[in-house]
Amino acid sequence: MKILGIDPGYAILGYGIVEKIGNRFKVCSYGAVTTDASMDMTDRLEYLYDSLREIIDEEKPDVASIEQLFFNTNAKTAILVGQARGVAVLACVKGGLEIEEYTPLQIKQALVGYGRADKKQVQMMVKTILNLKKIPKPDDTADALAAAICHGHSAETRKRLKELDIR
Amino acid sequence: MKILGIDPGYAILGYGIVEKIGNRFKVCSYGAVTTDASMDMTDRLEYLYDSLREIIDEEKPDVASIEQLFFNTNAKTAILVGQARGVAVLACVKGGLEIEEYTPLQIKQALVGYGRADKKQVQMMVKTILNLKKIPKPDDTADALAAAICHGHSAETRKRLKELDIR
Repeated sequence: MKILGIDPGYAILGYGIVEKIGNRFKVCSYGAVTTDASMDMTDRLEYLYDSLREIIDEEKPDVASIEQLFFNTNAKTAILVGQARGVAVLACVKGGLEIEEYTPLQIKQALVGYGRADKKQVQMMVKTILNLKKIPKPDDTADALAAAICHGHSAETRKRLKELDIR
Repeated sequence: MKILGIDPGYAILGYGIVEKIGNRFKVCSYGAVTTDASMDMTDRLEYLYDSLREIIDEEKPDVASIEQLFFNTNAKTAILVGQARGVAVLACVKGGLEIEEYTPLQIKQALVGYGRADKKQVQMMVKTILNLKKIPKPDDTADALAAAICHGHSAETRKRLKELDIR
């Protein structure tokens, strides 16, 4: 199973693709799609969508794992980030992927075994699990890989729960 | 000039297409795309996108006029509405439309001549300007038509300002 993890944002959208083979993870590719503040929001949204479609076409993942967004910040920022998340979800749907969503708590739980783990602990686990030399930068990329790994850990359980219809 | 007005939302997305001929408006079509709360958010976003693409393919407007969103409500709602707005903007871009954005204040100003006009006054003006028998329902549809009319009124001025680069 090949999993595309996404950390949505309009200035930086982190992505990471991992393959789960048995109980092990192999990293395929990762990075960030960035848009400049000088661009129109319309152009930024289209660029994010097109870039993600290209990544999906190239890597052909089976499923997307996207972090659910929670905000303490103001509603204006939330709308902007929501717009970026909307086109990211659409790129995955139009690219033929299943979409799974996880809360930050679920992701931390899956990686560190502790829902209140800090960012650094999650990043260290990403590095360790994927056998990387360094923690991927920017943070958005590491977060995207964490979302991908989280689904790798949780997919079987989720599938069984869905079959039992008790999710 | 054929203008597609959009009032973005994920449960109800209002749209209205008007044509400006000289100083007069002709209404082409209007309505609302609705998605049910029982649907996955992913499916709702795809449905909104596909429906809007169909409307654009059928009516072939030249430009989209979309209300800018401002919220007093919580960030969670803002993210959800932002997602819907993101896919609506993308549908317009991918449908080959120019996109213009107006604040609620600009729309009220353009229709009623008064930025603090209430919803009912704006709806009455939509009915009058488009020579309709009734105020279009739901409110989202009337709002979408208002956005379209607003651009019809403002396009010339905006264009000149852009040429002078003083917008």
